[in-house]
Amino acid sequence: MANTYIEMETLKFLLFNVHDLKTVLEQEQFEEYDEESIAMMLDSVKDFSDKELYPYYREMDENPAHFKDGEIIVHPQVKKYMKAGGEMGFLSGPFSYEAGGMQMPSMVVHASAFIQETANNHLPGYIGLTVGAAELIVHFGNQFLKDTYVPKMMAGEWSGTMCLTEPQAGSSLSDIVTTAVPNGDSYKINGQKIFISGGDYKGAENIVHLVLARIKGAPAGTKGISLFVVPKNRFDADGNLEYNDVTTVGDFQKMGQRGYCTTHLFFGDKEDCTGWLVGEPNQGLKYMFLMMNGARIAVGRGAAAIATGAYHASVSYAKERPQGRELQRTGKKDASQEQTLIINHPDVRRMLLLQKVITEGSLSLVFLTSRYQDLSQSLPDAESRAKYKLLLEILTPVVKTYPSEMGITSVNNGVQVLGGYGFCSDYILQQYLRDIRISAIYEGTTGIQSQDLLGRKITMENGKALKLLSEEIMNSIKESMAHESLKPLAEKLGSKLELTQKVLQSLMGYAMKGDYQRFLADATPFMEFFSTIIMAWQWLDIGREAQKALVSADTSFSTEFYENKIHAMQFYFKYELPKTTGLSEILMDKQALTLNTEKHLFA
Amino acid sequence: MANTYIEMETLKFLLFNVHDLKTVLEQEQFEEYDEESIAMMLDSVKDFSDKELYPYYREMDENPAHFKDGEIIVHPQVKKYMKAGGEMGFLSGPFSYEAGGMQMPSMVVHASAFIQETANNHLPGYIGLTVGAAELIVHFGNQFLKDTYVPKMMAGEWSGTMCLTEPQAGSSLSDIVTTAVPNGDSYKINGQKIFISGGDYKGAENIVHLVLARIKGAPAGTKGISLFVVPKNRFDADGNLEYNDVTTVGDFQKMGQRGYCTTHLFFGDKEDCTGWLVGEPNQGLKYMFLMMNGARIAVGRGAAAIATGAYHASVSYAKERPQGRELQRTGKKDASQEQTLIINHPDVRRMLLLQKVITEGSLSLVFLTSRYQDLSQSLPDAESRAKYKLLLEILTPVVKTYPSEMGITSVNNGVQVLGGYGFCSDYILQQYLRDIRISAIYEGTTGIQSQDLLGRKITMENGKALKLLSEEIMNSIKESMAHESLKPLAEKLGSKLELTQKVLQSLMGYAMKGDYQRFLADATPFMEFFSTIIMAWQWLDIGREAQKALVSADTSFSTEFYENKIHAMQFYFKYELPKTTGLSEILMDKQALTLNTEKHLFA
Repeated sequence: MANTYIEMETLKFLLFNVHDLKTVLEQEQFEEYDEESIAMMLDSVKDFSDKELYPYYREMDENPAHFKDGEIIVHPQVKKYMKAGGEMGFLSGPFSYEAGGMQMPSMVVHASAFIQETANNHLPGYIGLTVGAAELIVHFGNQFLKDTYVPKMMAGEWSGTMCLTEPQAGSSLSDIVTTAVPNGDSYKINGQKIFISGGDYKGAENIVHLVLARIKGAPAGTKGISLFVVPKNRFDADGNLEYNDVTTVGDFQKMGQRGYCTTHLFFGDKEDCTGWLVGEPNQGLKYMFLMMNGARIAVGRGAAAIATGAYHASVSYAKERPQGRELQRTGKKDASQEQTLIINHPDVRRMLLLQKVITEGSLSLVFLTSRYQDLSQSLPDAESRAKYKLLLEILTPVVKTYPSEMGITSVNNGVQVLGGYGFCSDYILQQYLRDIRISAIYEGTTGIQSQDLLGRKITMENGKALKLLSEEIMNSIKESMAHESLKPLAEKLGSKLELTQKVLQSLMGYAMKGDYQRFLADATPFMEFFSTIIMAWQWLDIGREAQKALVSADTSFSTEFYENKIHAMQFYFKYELPKTTGLSEILMDKQALTLNTEKHLFA
Repeated sequence: MANTYIEMETLKFLLFNVHDLKTVLEQEQFEEYDEESIAMMLDSVKDFSDKELYPYYREMDENPAHFKDGEIIVHPQVKKYMKAGGEMGFLSGPFSYEAGGMQMPSMVVHASAFIQETANNHLPGYIGLTVGAAELIVHFGNQFLKDTYVPKMMAGEWSGTMCLTEPQAGSSLSDIVTTAVPNGDSYKINGQKIFISGGDYKGAENIVHLVLARIKGAPAGTKGISLFVVPKNRFDADGNLEYNDVTTVGDFQKMGQRGYCTTHLFFGDKEDCTGWLVGEPNQGLKYMFLMMNGARIAVGRGAAAIATGAYHASVSYAKERPQGRELQRTGKKDASQEQTLIINHPDVRRMLLLQKVITEGSLSLVFLTSRYQDLSQSLPDAESRAKYKLLLEILTPVVKTYPSEMGITSVNNGVQVLGGYGFCSDYILQQYLRDIRISAIYEGTTGIQSQDLLGRKITMENGKALKLLSEEIMNSIKESMAHESLKPLAEKLGSKLELTQKVLQSLMGYAMKGDYQRFLADATPFMEFFSTIIMAWQWLDIGREAQKALVSADTSFSTEFYENKIHAMQFYFKYELPKTTGLSEILMDKQALTLNTEKHLFA
């Protein structure tokens, strides 16, 4: 059962065939890459993951990162991984040549990270946050900041973090109170931050924190938040590193992702913490959110990866575990028969297929959105770039949420496949279940994403993003109608698009009357409704590509591989898509039962 | 926030008002009890739980039961609890006066256990299994076994266990291979058992195992399984306890319920393990299953209890945690306003109401089924007893499954209410989430229960149980139609009953054609469909009782209390019942996608 945490064929099929990486690689920005070199690179990431990531997955859980004597102790693999990440280009991949990077398409960066996260989701975050922090500096920082920090970060020598949350300000960032007082070219920083992933660890040469704070006298709310670079160690006059008064005061022990440290930091406890402003004052939240699409795709990708690891673990178990006998067509069982493998029981097959459609569909969505990101940056004409930017915007909350929420459901089914063993620490399924739970919370909870989808993205530019998205889906439907066997599914998806219009008309009624509270009250069920339909589109695309390959006798993958994709598509349409019927009933129901009018519901 | 793990008013309202304990207490068997004495007794159980159970909940997780030097080390509270259980009648409650018990109604026994489990679900299992083991001896054992074991067990001096599972025989009990060889009046036992809850712990004077094994030469399969009493220590000729060659060889570390030990036992490793046959040879599984209804209600009850504890923990948090601002009707937020408590956000209210309808509905179902159990045993005429027996039979898989499966959903929402803190070990929600996961596996997985429901219970006696159940639901609908405000909900439930008939007609088509494999392939979605409708019935009954109390100005509970129950009923009908529309689409879809015809789906 060793290393059965990913199936590279499916990843490649989704990346190259379904989501057509080739078109992206044809853009000038990516002209140094071709499909072959990318495929080889991804194989080497898999080899690396086999050797450097998967073997440590369980032990990082069993020996969690922890706070001791003022420091955070992490697994020794963290430092090795950061260094390897520098050498293998995991850190420089997403950056332009100009910035010293490898200028890789976002699709490829996500594919590489996905492979790593299926093997061990406790490690890639250290690199992911370092990249995120460096991106903020590269995009918005001045030359001094770029020269001082970015090369060290790309080399994996210095880590980076994002410091947003404070004890009183989590989902509500407008309530941040960390202060910045001008002091010559820089600022004195004072405040505390919690839930800082990768915030500190013993043996790290330096940690570069990207900190949201208020410059003294700034306006209240989100309009008064600025972004600062605040390193744990700063350079003194002689160019030596000296302590910058960033103190780790504790950590958070968690139910999962226990190898990925989560810290509580004090800035300026001794009034000697220096921060350097990034870009303009009071633009901090805007900068953060300009990088947020990528971060949110990354959370969805991580959830998809955890669920993928769990899926393969439960398939492996089901293929090896004998239990019970196959029910004969007649309903009889024959006790004198050998036991059958549990993978032959229909209910187990149903659970495994559910995992399959959730995990592969989620990865498809990750590639779709990162493709939009690539095209929005690399296409030659501005109008096309703008189009893909809007498509990216509307799907960002979906790619954050669907893999997270349905990933939990998927891993939960994976545990169930193992029966009692699923609950036992000797088997890995329970770890996946504990690890994935954070995904629906990280980087904006499901509630926040759902409000973003319905309250902002659906309505943006008079519904233009939604219109573009509907056109994309209609194109897929039209193309699918050409295949006799896909027709009923394409029609079904078409009817669900119409249902979406009906639901939105009903909801928009509240907004038109100026009742935004009502309009957004059921944003979360709307997210479930909308994303379930988006995934049907993904599966129609996957099934159609497989169907085309079968017809054209394309031997890139086996006949069985294509047939299984078509089977999974049918499973999704039979078992998952019908949910939307009940969800549409909920969304069009006129009763208001969750508004804060009846104060004492929970008295 | 101390001790907010249960709300006794709801428990009493469900027990006394909705499920009419009075009628049960009027039966001769229970004539020594009245409502007042029961209410006082339950209050004392709550006091006991406040002092002896809840304070140890977290520490039993943090210091799990574990195997060390051939013994299982458990929290010191285990022994204290067993002793207290003897003194307070937790152990003797369910037994007849004749058997030395307190002859309490099952409804009351479950109410008491429920309170305890909301406070700490790691402890009550030690008593639950001791009761279960003693019940097997009382019902099927001879006088020698009764005299030797039952008094010690009822006193809480000796624990009991159920030893069913073996490494190769979990869901498939027909594959048990533990052997019993006749040896005078007793048998020599040889074999191993795994997943034995409460199987051993340091300081226990004795543990009485009820063991399934095959007498040499017995038929294969379930027809050759016998039941034995196999104590850890037996009496020697002088009446002293001597070791009976039952060895604890290890334990199972689990993701939850870590204070409740799970052991691996060897019987007869030194060929010196004596067992005493219970009842007749080859009837072991039958005996086990005769006690199974109670055990399965208990698992559902435990799940409902865990979800209830989690619900109150998340409500408490939501009432104290400020975050963000209330969205005004106009969609604006005012950053200069104070932050609002998160309980005022509609999406948080939706999550809390979802928890409320799942947990209170689950407890209602526990009382309904235990009421059926009581009436099936205590009513004067045989025909009525038979009727309630059938009602109990058909709802047993549902009461096992709904609270378990939807309890996981409920606690998962409870975690989400806390945001990042929900994932952190400092907050209790993550423990509830880990604890409840086993419920869908214990005592027959959801898949097994679903096959029992559709394959056995729905069809039993030509559908008589289903007919009786439909009558019960129709009576509730008729009674509700008399209340103008309940009419739309009653009609909705009526239409769902009709939909159930349609779904069953479609499924029965396969059975009529002799294709049982097809008939049962979607048993689990059918369980979800069926149980969601059963819960709508429960909520209609709860809402109607509340409505009646409002109309008659009954002051047993506050007006707000009644109004909140009606509100929760409406929530259930708006947000949960519509699921059944999509589920019916799945169940009536003619495609077969999970049968074992395509062998290589997971190649």
